[in-house]
Amino acid sequence: MNYKLLKSEIKYHGKVFDHQVDEIQYDSGNIGIREVAVHPGGAVIIPIKEDGKIILVKQFRYPLQKTLIELPAGKLDKNEDPLKCAIRELEEETGYKAKHFEKLGAIYTAPGYCTEILHIYKATGMIPGNHNREEGEQGMELIEFSLDEIKQRILSGEINDAKTIAGIFYLIND
Amino acid sequence: MNYKLLKSEIKYHGKVFDHQVDEIQYDSGNIGIREVAVHPGGAVIIPIKEDGKIILVKQFRYPLQKTLIELPAGKLDKNEDPLKCAIRELEEETGYKAKHFEKLGAIYTAPGYCTEILHIYKATGMIPGNHNREEGEQGMELIEFSLDEIKQRILSGEINDAKTIAGIFYLIND
Repeated sequence: MNYKLLKSEIKYHGKVFDHQVDEIQYDSGNIGIREVAVHPGGAVIIPIKEDGKIILVKQFRYPLQKTLIELPAGKLDKNEDPLKCAIRELEEETGYKAKHFEKLGAIYTAPGYCTEILHIYKATGMIPGNHNREEGEQGMELIEFSLDEIKQRILSGEINDAKTIAGIFYLIND
Repeated sequence: MNYKLLKSEIKYHGKVFDHQVDEIQYDSGNIGIREVAVHPGGAVIIPIKEDGKIILVKQFRYPLQKTLIELPAGKLDKNEDPLKCAIRELEEETGYKAKHFEKLGAIYTAPGYCTEILHIYKATGMIPGNHNREEGEQGMELIEFSLDEIKQRILSGEINDAKTIAGIFYLIND
């Protein structure tokens, strides 16, 4: 797309994302507005135990006012290496450490209006420990499902989180 | 999660999404902040031609400053029925009408901070026509791939849009 940036403004500096509004001019001379949620990105972990079970988290999601079943995941700290984030979030949310991490892919969650990219890792060689959840995550529960149980729950609509479905897609074809 | 809502404020009213910040109080008495991108949701279409080829759109995504290959999709108008949105967006972006729509599922793209839900439809019985793209979509191109070609491009990282991967997951298992 050919355009000229006329103006870029952060309308609100958030804790999770900034709300940026840009004014652009197309080649035709017409003016367009582009609205962007500026997000640091994150890491998603597919933790696989020796018995093949995958560890998921069940948690209340405030924006939806619903409890979702998802792969463990979390936001990158500023300029953080995605693998470091995956290691940290896995332990924080589940208590597990993993001996091996393998990157399966990276996805854009909402490319129309958001900069977020999520890096997806398979984690194996699981070592149990204590989680270290933030206060807003205290209600989080761990669930273990086989790959086939997850697949069935995606198809039934019980699991409906985009990053989880993408992660399972990569895993099935890994 | 048990909490009490102390305050809810729209910090910025956007054209695409609103930026809402809520102050909540946990049972412990501690205060938490919840930041929400209030989004109307949307519809995603998997348009399948008689020969089995799937129609995708290649478009420049401003927030990422990158060109992505995605399933056609668009935002719901206020209180719009998702199927109506799917019919409209399919024609607007590709020029095609479809005789049959079948709902395959619905996904949350970013449940940690965004209300967006995307309704995913399989469309068959394609009738070609003229697209009706908005000015910011003029650079959009149509591409046709077989299901296997899409799968390979997801695994190679060339297709990396979450809704597209989720849609293909549903389609493979339909």
